[in-house]
Amino acid sequence: MNGAQALMKTLVDAGIEVCFSNPGTSEMHFVAALDDEPKMRAVLALFEGVATGAADGYARMADKPAATLLHLGCGLGNGLANLHNARKGKVPVVNIVGDHAIAHVKYDAQLQSDIETVARNVSPGFVRTSQTTADLCMDAVEAITTARGLPGQVATLILPADVSWGEGGSPCALPAQAASPVADDGAVRAVVDAIRSGKKTALLLGGRALREPALMAAAKVAAANGVTLLAETFPTRMERGEGLPPVERVAYLAELAGVQLADIAHLILVDSKAPVSFFAYPGKKSYLVPDTCTVHTLSRPEQDALASLEKLVAALGADNAQPEVQQLQCPSAPRGRLSAPKVCKAMGHFLPENAIIIDEAITSGLMLNAMTAGSPRHDMITLTGGAIGQGLPNAVGAAIACPERPVIALIGDGTAMYTIQALWTMAREQLNVTTIIFNNASYSVLNIELERVGAEDAGDKAKSQLDLNGPVLNFAQLAQGMGVHGVRVDTAEAFNYALEYALSQPGPHLIEAMVPESLNGLKRKILPWVLRSLPSLPLPVTRTLKNKIAP
Amino acid sequence: MNGAQALMKTLVDAGIEVCFSNPGTSEMHFVAALDDEPKMRAVLALFEGVATGAADGYARMADKPAATLLHLGCGLGNGLANLHNARKGKVPVVNIVGDHAIAHVKYDAQLQSDIETVARNVSPGFVRTSQTTADLCMDAVEAITTARGLPGQVATLILPADVSWGEGGSPCALPAQAASPVADDGAVRAVVDAIRSGKKTALLLGGRALREPALMAAAKVAAANGVTLLAETFPTRMERGEGLPPVERVAYLAELAGVQLADIAHLILVDSKAPVSFFAYPGKKSYLVPDTCTVHTLSRPEQDALASLEKLVAALGADNAQPEVQQLQCPSAPRGRLSAPKVCKAMGHFLPENAIIIDEAITSGLMLNAMTAGSPRHDMITLTGGAIGQGLPNAVGAAIACPERPVIALIGDGTAMYTIQALWTMAREQLNVTTIIFNNASYSVLNIELERVGAEDAGDKAKSQLDLNGPVLNFAQLAQGMGVHGVRVDTAEAFNYALEYALSQPGPHLIEAMVPESLNGLKRKILPWVLRSLPSLPLPVTRTLKNKIAP
Repeated sequence: MNGAQALMKTLVDAGIEVCFSNPGTSEMHFVAALDDEPKMRAVLALFEGVATGAADGYARMADKPAATLLHLGCGLGNGLANLHNARKGKVPVVNIVGDHAIAHVKYDAQLQSDIETVARNVSPGFVRTSQTTADLCMDAVEAITTARGLPGQVATLILPADVSWGEGGSPCALPAQAASPVADDGAVRAVVDAIRSGKKTALLLGGRALREPALMAAAKVAAANGVTLLAETFPTRMERGEGLPPVERVAYLAELAGVQLADIAHLILVDSKAPVSFFAYPGKKSYLVPDTCTVHTLSRPEQDALASLEKLVAALGADNAQPEVQQLQCPSAPRGRLSAPKVCKAMGHFLPENAIIIDEAITSGLMLNAMTAGSPRHDMITLTGGAIGQGLPNAVGAAIACPERPVIALIGDGTAMYTIQALWTMAREQLNVTTIIFNNASYSVLNIELERVGAEDAGDKAKSQLDLNGPVLNFAQLAQGMGVHGVRVDTAEAFNYALEYALSQPGPHLIEAMVPESLNGLKRKILPWVLRSLPSLPLPVTRTLKNKIAP
Repeated sequence: MNGAQALMKTLVDAGIEVCFSNPGTSEMHFVAALDDEPKMRAVLALFEGVATGAADGYARMADKPAATLLHLGCGLGNGLANLHNARKGKVPVVNIVGDHAIAHVKYDAQLQSDIETVARNVSPGFVRTSQTTADLCMDAVEAITTARGLPGQVATLILPADVSWGEGGSPCALPAQAASPVADDGAVRAVVDAIRSGKKTALLLGGRALREPALMAAAKVAAANGVTLLAETFPTRMERGEGLPPVERVAYLAELAGVQLADIAHLILVDSKAPVSFFAYPGKKSYLVPDTCTVHTLSRPEQDALASLEKLVAALGADNAQPEVQQLQCPSAPRGRLSAPKVCKAMGHFLPENAIIIDEAITSGLMLNAMTAGSPRHDMITLTGGAIGQGLPNAVGAAIACPERPVIALIGDGTAMYTIQALWTMAREQLNVTTIIFNNASYSVLNIELERVGAEDAGDKAKSQLDLNGPVLNFAQLAQGMGVHGVRVDTAEAFNYALEYALSQPGPHLIEAMVPESLNGLKRKILPWVLRSLPSLPLPVTRTLKNKIAP
């Protein structure tokens, strides 16, 4: 048995049954080993960022890692942005990077580079170049163990070609997973004191605390003690909708987050971190927690969030509290000329039971959370690390993890072009993904940011760096060029029809929603619009902001 | 004047007049500064790999660096593969990477990563995070000086947002460029002795030694002393065709390179390195120079290759030798069902004067060199670092550097999909680029490599990782979706017509050549085919191989 064959066996024995790959010559023995292992599904991507983003999306839904297969340092480089997103989302990925044969390295051939250095950023917990075929599977076991522990991590195993092709490989079994620690008594006591202080208190839920059991425990705390439930701005995976506790995400715009956090005296972190602004802005604070607020940590990412919340429930005597849950409450179908908020409204209206929403519509998706808050139960996956190009690959992975669930990816036009190659993998694997592209022919968020950083009087040359006009992309055509059914629509009626059709048919579909770029101007338009819109929404998820905004 | 404005002025004063950009929020002040600087042309890319590859292609043709503008560590990651190619090609690039404001770093916001570590691989000579607005332009001057020296380098200047937006920027002027050293007397003497030894001797030309003046000097050495002229396998930029000395590239396939190098007793390196195989293969040597061959270095990459060759010419008393130059000798236009060699033949037939060929057709371009050897004078740009996805971005950069010259990019289908977003920039900037995609629905080179690594009996599952069927990509449609005129052809006649049309019209065009994947099987098909084909070609460029192959 050669190294590649033994590694393959080690992976599947550890439950890693999908490999998202973009191989080259140095990975050919691993590729050849696929034939001997029926339990491993290999999913080809045309670009490494698709492979790594798919592994991320898969793990978010499967709750176990997939493997990637990348080609040397440059292949890893191409996959780095989505590994960054996985790292920030605490998502387990077993990242396998082929390398030159060890004896070949000294010749500094064309593709020679220092892979470990490239990997270090995204794999702080485990980067190793396996040195012998005999040791390979032990290295793999360490990588898998690191990846799937708490917090989930990207573990990078570098696989020299000769270690892969060498004979004497020997599969290894994974040791039983150690139980994760729970919030210690002191932390729980401090949180109980804060909650009982009579001052305004909020739980900020992140990571694993946004899954149903943890949400239910948090909602008991909220129901018994009048505590506000908040979610981190960019959840890795958030279970929500009918029957689950409504939780409001901290807004991306620091201006809105400030409103949400303004009068909180105690902020309690559960697998989350204290809110900071996404970017720094001249003269503005990065740390969004008010000076008058005390931050407590109930559980850290390496601790079991659910068990910690349950310990808190017990300490508060809230076991029998009745959690408030979301009732089914969907907006009507939109009508008339299409706009980004209308697409979000249609999502809320048509969202099927058990859907997986991938949200990478940075400005156009502004109303998505509010519009789908009362939809049938679903999962929401968001851009955890800010490296755009996550959404389409995430959709690939989520659809492979959950073939029976509809996946709907809402993606901005600028964002979509980073990893547009994902559409081909959707077609090849006939995945049940409905991709919705908001085509507003602009890096719309950057027009907002241009104003936020104080450069709002920019001229034509600067603004041309933010627009995607000349030519306007045709995503329906791009989809068709990759074998995905694609349509372009510009009315709400046509959008509704296309969405219903896509959801009723198997395989991938793409709907290109032509929407005006109406959100430019943070102060002039967006903030007033949000402040105007939210109070009229019937949805409890926006309660914090609504209560503060309503006259 | 803020930091960004001062940096912009420093760049244009140093002759850097093009910036290939994919900005985000942290780069907004640099973007805003574009409005104040009419001399800077900003070219937007939809993906960072396009921006970095365009900067590479630009510098190869302009002989001076362009700037990039990338967004934090993830943006740099996306651009890493093509920066690797630039590094391996000794191409100058001034890589500007925006970062969070310095005070924001400690909050570990979503996009926080260690940019310097990511950059180190591709920028070993210069990576610096500028710490103050006052120092920014001095840092930039060092970056530019490092980039444009010999050998050309990628220099990475990391620009924190507050250093960019801070007031007190002060532009700096570039010091005069120091003269590069020339081959020392001892090296020249050793080479003269080798050439006069009476044994078979070859000059292996690389880097700057493949430009006209150096080629002419090398050809004088060859003419006066019977020395063979070879070029490195993947030249950064090679001037060739009618009126220039014919130089044969060392073959990619080690099996063929072995034939070329077999009886050479003295191999003389001129801005090149001794040939090694691209990858390692079980039981095969990485170092391709025969044991009986002595390697000499006339000039290293940090030395002036032209002046060194001229010194050699003088030492040999060959000043008046008459260099052999290529005569115009074009193949006829191909006919019948289209194939990859026929596309190469059409290239040889139709190639216009002064064209720039970008060759990233890994297997399909096998006959390109031979077919265009006797074409009108042109430049050839190749994949220097092996990180595929270089060709389309290189074409963008080359067309911007040389707007009056036709650029023809020959790209494999698998390769094209890594940076397909480049087509949009071609459309936006209305560049005179004719893109030819060889659509054989396969990672054809990997089918060859699968055999070379000894895994030739691979099964269906392994082979499916190397094929691009199901669905077959439609590149004409992809081009149209990005605003580029695209056609798909499957006969030589249609290809000829499409090529003539594309070359006669301004702006970008894409021709999708549907070709059979006929090259599978190195031992069964390719080597016999090459050995059979080469002797019948009338072209001197294949002389070394032909002489050895002919019965």
